[in-house]
Amino acid sequence: MFDFEPIGLRAKEAARALSWADTNIKNPALRLIAQALNENKRAILEKNRTDVKAAEAKGVKSSLVDRLYLNEKRIEGIAEGILKVADLADPVGEIIEGTVRPNGLKIVKQRVPLGVVGIIYESRPNVTADSAALCLKSGNAAVLRGGKEAINTNIIIAEIMRGCLSKAGLPEDCIQLVDSTDRESAEAMMKAHGLIDVLIPRGGAGLIRACVENSTVPVIETGVGNCHIYVDSAANLEMAVDIIDNAKTQRPGVCNACETVLLHRDIAEEILPKLKKRLDQHKVEIRGCPITKMILGKCVVDATEDDWATEYLDYILAVRVVDNIYDAIDHIRKYSTGHSECIITDSLPAADEFSRQIDAAAVYVNASTRFTDGFEFGLGAEIGISTAKLHARGPMGLKELTTVKYLISGSGQIRE
Amino acid sequence: MFDFEPIGLRAKEAARALSWADTNIKNPALRLIAQALNENKRAILEKNRTDVKAAEAKGVKSSLVDRLYLNEKRIEGIAEGILKVADLADPVGEIIEGTVRPNGLKIVKQRVPLGVVGIIYESRPNVTADSAALCLKSGNAAVLRGGKEAINTNIIIAEIMRGCLSKAGLPEDCIQLVDSTDRESAEAMMKAHGLIDVLIPRGGAGLIRACVENSTVPVIETGVGNCHIYVDSAANLEMAVDIIDNAKTQRPGVCNACETVLLHRDIAEEILPKLKKRLDQHKVEIRGCPITKMILGKCVVDATEDDWATEYLDYILAVRVVDNIYDAIDHIRKYSTGHSECIITDSLPAADEFSRQIDAAAVYVNASTRFTDGFEFGLGAEIGISTAKLHARGPMGLKELTTVKYLISGSGQIRE
Repeated sequence: MFDFEPIGLRAKEAARALSWADTNIKNPALRLIAQALNENKRAILEKNRTDVKAAEAKGVKSSLVDRLYLNEKRIEGIAEGILKVADLADPVGEIIEGTVRPNGLKIVKQRVPLGVVGIIYESRPNVTADSAALCLKSGNAAVLRGGKEAINTNIIIAEIMRGCLSKAGLPEDCIQLVDSTDRESAEAMMKAHGLIDVLIPRGGAGLIRACVENSTVPVIETGVGNCHIYVDSAANLEMAVDIIDNAKTQRPGVCNACETVLLHRDIAEEILPKLKKRLDQHKVEIRGCPITKMILGKCVVDATEDDWATEYLDYILAVRVVDNIYDAIDHIRKYSTGHSECIITDSLPAADEFSRQIDAAAVYVNASTRFTDGFEFGLGAEIGISTAKLHARGPMGLKELTTVKYLISGSGQIRE
Repeated sequence: MFDFEPIGLRAKEAARALSWADTNIKNPALRLIAQALNENKRAILEKNRTDVKAAEAKGVKSSLVDRLYLNEKRIEGIAEGILKVADLADPVGEIIEGTVRPNGLKIVKQRVPLGVVGIIYESRPNVTADSAALCLKSGNAAVLRGGKEAINTNIIIAEIMRGCLSKAGLPEDCIQLVDSTDRESAEAMMKAHGLIDVLIPRGGAGLIRACVENSTVPVIETGVGNCHIYVDSAANLEMAVDIIDNAKTQRPGVCNACETVLLHRDIAEEILPKLKKRLDQHKVEIRGCPITKMILGKCVVDATEDDWATEYLDYILAVRVVDNIYDAIDHIRKYSTGHSECIITDSLPAADEFSRQIDAAAVYVNASTRFTDGFEFGLGAEIGISTAKLHARGPMGLKELTTVKYLISGSGQIRE
């Protein structure tokens, strides 16, 4: 049986020391980490080769091996990302609001770290460094539990980071990597209520479902995006084709990519051939409803119920012709994962209706869903895109890694 | 097997209609409810008698029967509370922040309802009306599941409220009472991920633990308060006695009442007899550490490990003498439920250290813990005091019953 308690207790203790560490201690630690990652590229790449070879030997498919794979440029990118986190404003200590009550009590609401943040993720080793940096800057101890494919890479990255913490005068245990990658260790983290303050799964729908179903620690669901674009009867069709193309093909493997397009029947016949022509440039497979098939012909694969619910993360697009905006809204309400949804229209009432009725982290009018991202929103680096409604929704950055505390000071006030 | 799905689907549908209902529709509904509760006092009291008699017949203890019991004045108080909710500002639709990005994308972050709020509570029938009113005002459908002791009272209150919703032009299912009060119905709500957006247990520690352990729906923990007051060596001892007396005895059955007092050893001998004398007026039992007992003598009951962890909600106070502020902080960090913690001191460094190190919703300097309350903080009515760190911490009012949505509007922007 995997025993999480010692790890959890060390994290709690480290979090206590970190919670009020000045920005002038945390930022140098982050810069040391960025520097050390760059200086230790060779050692990291060596461990990464071990992981990559093992994955290849096991026949892991190439898109997954690519997620695992590091090279010098990718490590430099990770280091650069950490420097960007150092440059962001420190959210800890911010006074959000304050008041003096009629009885003279002074009340302020102050931003403080959450405490211990648990992150369960899959094969991408950059998550190890990214997540740790965001937790560190926001004053939280990080407990990282990555996938087994990346274990050797993760171990060396964590070691490098921990060494830098010591040098910067912070407890090493502000960053801990759980080196057991079996199911038990993940489950132990899910049950660590009282030791972990929030669990953030970063990975596929299966991982997130497992966390939601099994966790007694509060979970923030992130990153599952079955995103839709609805093209209204009043849409600028050229703009629609540009946006759909961008949202589908600019980077199909990410959560804010478009998966289903809904077309108002009045414009379906006009837009579909244009859309098909454009998507053909990226060999996008179209899975369509009967009307789509009637218009485009045999090249369209019959869409099944499953297609409406699937986040392809690939060069595949589901297409459905709908009678009106209400049918589009109903479809989206049924299949949306609450990530990013879009309407293309020049009609103000249609834009308003869609914006009101759609219940998602990000609702777009006339722009690509690909913009749902901390940097694109001007918020800075993010630990994930929350599709949950509690605590954080949308890009989850440093502020979302904090909670608040009321500080009340008086001069002997008692309640009558 | 209890089937929650039909209730959940009706709630979701009602929430959709309610989510953008104007304040000018919601407020009249609330006023109708207040009026109808006042007009139907006799019918409510009749049902309440049935519940009270059944409880008495079962030998339920009198403090619990009191929680269940309604009279005309209490019903008037409930109706008045609902009118106060109508008077509060509507949080829905508030633009929290907004920006125009360099590429011309306009991004606003807007407050929207959570959707469906589930409330599981125990014997107090006022929770039925209070919670429903707060959910209604914040645009959320409420699914209420009260205790079996109050079932007849709850049913009639819910019926009255639902009738008013119809009259006000809102779906009746904005408020639903689950009329099954067995364990299965509570468990079904805990597992209703996708149908309920947040579950708020209102009741004792056992109920809250059950929700945390079994729920796949996000839970906000509320209202368990093992609150401490630490009297520092630099304290004004008269103020300390006044505050402790108030925090312990002004209303001992509530979550912000004080349960343990920690005394710096330098002032223990001086304050203890004064404190004892004052607390004797309310026949408060003192459970003390060995030094406390040495000072006060045999009248002190020996405190056990359990005492430090117990929320008495009664005229009992645990007392421990500590060597210094750090021992006090360590004690509180170990036993605190993160509700309200207090230091009495005239020393600025001590006040600062305590405020930094204590991890709780409300940290007091020189004031009674009894102030942790939505109205006392100037925030208005609350659905509970959150001791969770995610989403809401401290008094949880209308704003905390909302989430946000990013609305992004463009003119064809795509991501490069």
